[in-house]
Amino acid sequence: MAGTIFERTLVTAEAEAAFADAAIVAGMVAFESALAEAEAAEGLIPASAAAAIVAACAEAPFDTEAIVVEARTAGALAIPLVRLLRERVAQRDAAAAAHVHFGSTSQDAIDTALMLATREAVALIDADLVRLVASLEALAAAHRATPMLGRTLLQPAQETRFGVVVESWVAPVRRGRERLASAARDALQVQLGGAVGTLAPLGDRGPAVMRRMAARLGLGAPPSAWHTERDATASLACTVAVLCGSLGKIGRDLSLLSQAEVAEVAEPHAPGRGSSSAMPHKRNPVAALVALSAAARAPHLAATVLAAMPQALQRGLGDWQAELAAWPSLFMAAHGAVQALADACEAGLEVDAARMLANLESHRRALAAATPSSGKPAP
Amino acid sequence: MAGTIFERTLVTAEAEAAFADAAIVAGMVAFESALAEAEAAEGLIPASAAAAIVAACAEAPFDTEAIVVEARTAGALAIPLVRLLRERVAQRDAAAAAHVHFGSTSQDAIDTALMLATREAVALIDADLVRLVASLEALAAAHRATPMLGRTLLQPAQETRFGVVVESWVAPVRRGRERLASAARDALQVQLGGAVGTLAPLGDRGPAVMRRMAARLGLGAPPSAWHTERDATASLACTVAVLCGSLGKIGRDLSLLSQAEVAEVAEPHAPGRGSSSAMPHKRNPVAALVALSAAARAPHLAATVLAAMPQALQRGLGDWQAELAAWPSLFMAAHGAVQALADACEAGLEVDAARMLANLESHRRALAAATPSSGKPAP
Amino acid sequence: MAGTIFERTLVTAEAEAAFADAAIVAGMVAFESALAEAEAAEGLIPASAAAAIVAACAEAPFDTEAIVVEARTAGALAIPLVRLLRERVAQRDAAAAAHVHFGSTSQDAIDTALMLATREAVALIDADLVRLVASLEALAAAHRATPMLGRTLLQPAQETRFGVVVESWVAPVRRGRERLASAARDALQVQLGGAVGTLAPLGDRGPAVMRRMAARLGLGAPPSAWHTERDATASLACTVAVLCGSLGKIGRDLSLLSQAEVAEVAEPHAPGRGSSSAMPHKRNPVAALVALSAAARAPHLAATVLAAMPQALQRGLGDWQAELAAWPSLFMAAHGAVQALADACEAGLEVDAARMLANLESHRRALAAATPSSGKPAP
Amino acid sequence: MAGTIFERTLVTAEAEAAFADAAIVAGMVAFESALAEAEAAEGLIPASAAAAIVAACAEAPFDTEAIVVEARTAGALAIPLVRLLRERVAQRDAAAAAHVHFGSTSQDAIDTALMLATREAVALIDADLVRLVASLEALAAAHRATPMLGRTLLQPAQETRFGVVVESWVAPVRRGRERLASAARDALQVQLGGAVGTLAPLGDRGPAVMRRMAARLGLGAPPSAWHTERDATASLACTVAVLCGSLGKIGRDLSLLSQAEVAEVAEPHAPGRGSSSAMPHKRNPVAALVALSAAARAPHLAATVLAAMPQALQRGLGDWQAELAAWPSLFMAAHGAVQALADACEAGLEVDAARMLANLESHRRALAAATPSSGKPAP
Repeated sequence: MAGTIFERTLVTAEAEAAFADAAIVAGMVAFESALAEAEAAEGLIPASAAAAIVAACAEAPFDTEAIVVEARTAGALAIPLVRLLRERVAQRDAAAAAHVHFGSTSQDAIDTALMLATREAVALIDADLVRLVASLEALAAAHRATPMLGRTLLQPAQETRFGVVVESWVAPVRRGRERLASAARDALQVQLGGAVGTLAPLGDRGPAVMRRMAARLGLGAPPSAWHTERDATASLACTVAVLCGSLGKIGRDLSLLSQAEVAEVAEPHAPGRGSSSAMPHKRNPVAALVALSAAARAPHLAATVLAAMPQALQRGLGDWQAELAAWPSLFMAAHGAVQALADACEAGLEVDAARMLANLESHRRALAAATPSSGKPAP
Repeated sequence: MAGTIFERTLVTAEAEAAFADAAIVAGMVAFESALAEAEAAEGLIPASAAAAIVAACAEAPFDTEAIVVEARTAGALAIPLVRLLRERVAQRDAAAAAHVHFGSTSQDAIDTALMLATREAVALIDADLVRLVASLEALAAAHRATPMLGRTLLQPAQETRFGVVVESWVAPVRRGRERLASAARDALQVQLGGAVGTLAPLGDRGPAVMRRMAARLGLGAPPSAWHTERDATASLACTVAVLCGSLGKIGRDLSLLSQAEVAEVAEPHAPGRGSSSAMPHKRNPVAALVALSAAARAPHLAATVLAAMPQALQRGLGDWQAELAAWPSLFMAAHGAVQALADACEAGLEVDAARMLANLESHRRALAAATPSSGKPAP
Repeated sequence: MAGTIFERTLVTAEAEAAFADAAIVAGMVAFESALAEAEAAEGLIPASAAAAIVAACAEAPFDTEAIVVEARTAGALAIPLVRLLRERVAQRDAAAAAHVHFGSTSQDAIDTALMLATREAVALIDADLVRLVASLEALAAAHRATPMLGRTLLQPAQETRFGVVVESWVAPVRRGRERLASAARDALQVQLGGAVGTLAPLGDRGPAVMRRMAARLGLGAPPSAWHTERDATASLACTVAVLCGSLGKIGRDLSLLSQAEVAEVAEPHAPGRGSSSAMPHKRNPVAALVALSAAARAPHLAATVLAAMPQALQRGLGDWQAELAAWPSLFMAAHGAVQALADACEAGLEVDAARMLANLESHRRALAAATPSSGKPAP
Repeated sequence: MAGTIFERTLVTAEAEAAFADAAIVAGMVAFESALAEAEAAEGLIPASAAAAIVAACAEAPFDTEAIVVEARTAGALAIPLVRLLRERVAQRDAAAAAHVHFGSTSQDAIDTALMLATREAVALIDADLVRLVASLEALAAAHRATPMLGRTLLQPAQETRFGVVVESWVAPVRRGRERLASAARDALQVQLGGAVGTLAPLGDRGPAVMRRMAARLGLGAPPSAWHTERDATASLACTVAVLCGSLGKIGRDLSLLSQAEVAEVAEPHAPGRGSSSAMPHKRNPVAALVALSAAARAPHLAATVLAAMPQALQRGLGDWQAELAAWPSLFMAAHGAVQALADACEAGLEVDAARMLANLESHRRALAAATPSSGKPAP
């Protein structure tokens, strides 16, 4: 689990798992394992040391609670993790312990672990975006000719078609999926810079070690360490926030169109779905709720990441940490929103074309009654 | 635990406990228990039903994971909780089950549980504010006459005293503590309004039930339900954010004054404190880090709460839920910051008065060299 | 004028005037005039010099455009203003010029000018709050017994009364007015600290000078300079943001209740009000629009102020300037919102009690059709 | 001028001109002119009407103050503009007046005008990015081998090279320039949808009219109206905010490295640049100040745009207007930052390589004194 209980009700079990405490620690362990392997391959540490480190990394997971507690004083999660890993390695091979984490720094392990978790989250989001896009495209196709009242500033305006409305929902999601793939490609990179980003302890083998690690971990290989170059990650965060905005727009429209007085669209019915503790008859638009909550939270989570960008010199003090703290919530919120909408749309939004027409006719009657016939086209 | 692992390293175990999943569920259970008790006292439900409900509430805690999972579909945490509680009560007294949650609504239970947790968090923050204020006041007194270089826009300006600087740290914290007490008094209220805020099912006994519950739970009794009147809670959130800003200011100054090139102040040394995975010699300003991270996150968390204020009609859709999701992080961040600073200041900041004087003299020499003697007072 | 054209359509001419370029420059001039007067009264500068400075300040306004252009390079508005004022004073009395701005610093003049403008804005907001509260209270009284359908999560819930709804609008506004008065009292203070906040050049006369200035300018006298103690101003900004949220809530409900399909409330009609360039028949809820736009912007403006709080040492670098840039927009947005709502409510919201009853009955019929009769009270 | 005086000191005259009230009105006029021309070309309105409209648009600018005042009541800037234009056209050709704005809606004119202004702003930003990148690349090349102390969490860490640091400044700016070009290409589109986005009054000529207008105005032609599809514009806003973050990072480092106690880098000296009203000897880092203020404001401006995305149905109520109000400030802040840094870097940052070496040696000596010789490589 990840996040407080209020946040957890808005996200998915899968996204929670991606950012769970244990998953992040596992990501740091994967970093250390890949680092040792790569350094041995480049002749920087003995092969036997690497073998001991890799084996220690493959043991049972570390005690995440102990790591959290120690990190509160140390200032970074990787510090207790490296200490515990060294202890483990020393039990296998005393000489190998000194080679753990060689040439690297806390931020290398933490940023890499974050990117590994983020890769999972992006894959989850993408998979549900595919479902959402497919069901909305089918819905748009089915209603290309369904007449409906367009509403601007929440007031009746002129006729549109429900298919046009649904197309205006799906087009930004389709574009958002493309933007997500592109921004993820740029941001999902291994972090390896050592104390000040130069990888000096690795001599001229630094870039080769980094590329080996990237390949091993399935992340991109950056031109250099990005300790305080946060533009690619900030861009990814913003892309997810924009996506949340587009999903929130769908949620907004669903919630408005499913008002009892409008009654043109309803989320599908299922047992327990959208129930009320006070009113058993109620059927609340839960997918809209989840999407709107993501759209309400995402701008502030993205802003936290953006505001943390001017990180001092070779490593941020407080701002990098704020960025880390906000990051998972953004991706979890996005997955919550896209899955909720995809589920609702796949199960089938209930569309009442007759009511759409009735609402449109009702507006036309009101308009005819209110407007003196002028014969002139509305300018 | 509450929050993701990155957030958790910046907060305290105590604040985490206040907002833990189990604590929030326990708060909702306390609400239901107090509600039954109060309704029986006012003759709205049978005393035997209340006894069964109170007893069921006192049993072993509910399965929070099951509640979270069910809430994702239902749309609110109180829905599965009420269902589970009814099942439990029915095992004791079949007739009593129908009286569980009588006249109330999900938001009543959830908002009240949130306020109970918040009361704990406010108490934690306040206790550490007392410690921080006391140690800063002592520090200011000790250095009332210690000369120091004042710096504006990060450039040398004119002489000040370290005691003046510390007083400029503590004064906002002192005021912040007063504001916190006042805002908490206004916001820490029981929520009880029923489906649409009118408490109609309780007839004319609604206010009396609410006041009994408030007394029982140790919360304030509001003039009416505040389902979509979020001004008191938003004000409390802002008060905490302002406090984080004042703590962040201390962190900012600590971090700048403890630069090796300035070296006028240092956080106290302790084993494992501010260590580095790459550089064993390093001593990082961890209290400053935690305070700055809180100040970096708080504005966005407060903004989430503020942006969620225009909640529709009798219950928000998406915005209330976003408010809930942001709320605990704000208070946990604040407690992390105040405890980190209180710990560092109580343990004793290391103040190098000689270095302060040397830096001041060095600036004076530079100034004398740069300025032609004019005899005129600096305008 | 103040703000870009898009912002300007959402604010009032009066609030614009309070924060107009010329008003801010006039505020700095008032600061310099009061400073000279107070310093002469305390024997720090010659009475003749003060007279010359006061007279120069009373001349025609300075060229604000020249000040803006020069400030872009200098880094602060007060720098060119002081230079220009010295030139003017020198023309009257060459010896007096050196006494201009004596003992003070740019931030003193700028913060004081900002507080003078803010005082005007707060007065404007307060005056319209009085109007808004009065008209909403009358509306609530008139509809205390008007039955209406309560709606939660935008779905029909149970019966409420329109008077209850209006009371839930006005109560937060009433409290917001009190909070505004209290926060303004704390924040509307003169700023006077000199280069590093110690007022050293004024010897032991500093506090007396400051108090004289406060009395002269009609601002509060702070315990010391608040150059980097931004808690009182940040609290005021938050109070205004909370108020915008409460106004936005009214706007939200107005916009929902005035949907054609609900049609229970409408903003009053007036020529040109809420018109449409495409649809002459349309009547858009403009007061709701303005209130919602203020509520949408205020959280981010307040967050800018909050995020700028950890200002370095004796004067911020970039963050103080960001605070200044965000500040006026917040107050102008608030006044736009309160005036728009006050105007609409004073002119008389159109309330259709018959439609309220019809919507309620329609829901009851739907409910009766959907619910098997159980005789059991709704749990 | 655009923005309040505090904002204006942080931006450039060129960016102000792009978003000046008159420029936005001129953009709406350009829209109406292009619309008439395109509609005549497609046979939708008489050529003579188009000629009258184009001629009226080419007359003296409209009174922007009158437009602002009327828009406050009407709810949108285009409403008074269209009214005034119709009056003008009627004086030339009474029959033509009815063809003004035919088939279009307020949002079409306003969004298009905003995109025209934004295109200018993007061009301004891009031109200064070119200068900034070039001068930073030269600086990095010149100092590829200059040894310097790396600092993490503001504490001394290990040796780096100044060229490495400068490369870490310029790489994000270079990428930011590419992202800006790409996001601008996607967002800078003509808006044309008519009342509800369907362009129904134009029959099957709608897309052709839109493409003609796009070509005429030099904007992109979107697949359909994007009234409530705000993903492309929100992405552009985020791209600018990310850029501001990268510029702020440069400002942060400049401000830290130019502290008197560090003294490794200084902004170039020029008369009046970075002066102080209290301390004539001071030299404030004004480019850093401007860049940091932009980075401090941009996240909140971008968040305003993001939060405004879920716009209701066929036109937003309050949120679209909030987006418009925030938009220009973001671009003006960005241009202020990039121009300030480009000017400072082109004029030549003062780099003190000797001091860099001295600081590094000083740290090495402190390190040697503190660390018992172990011979072991730093793990």
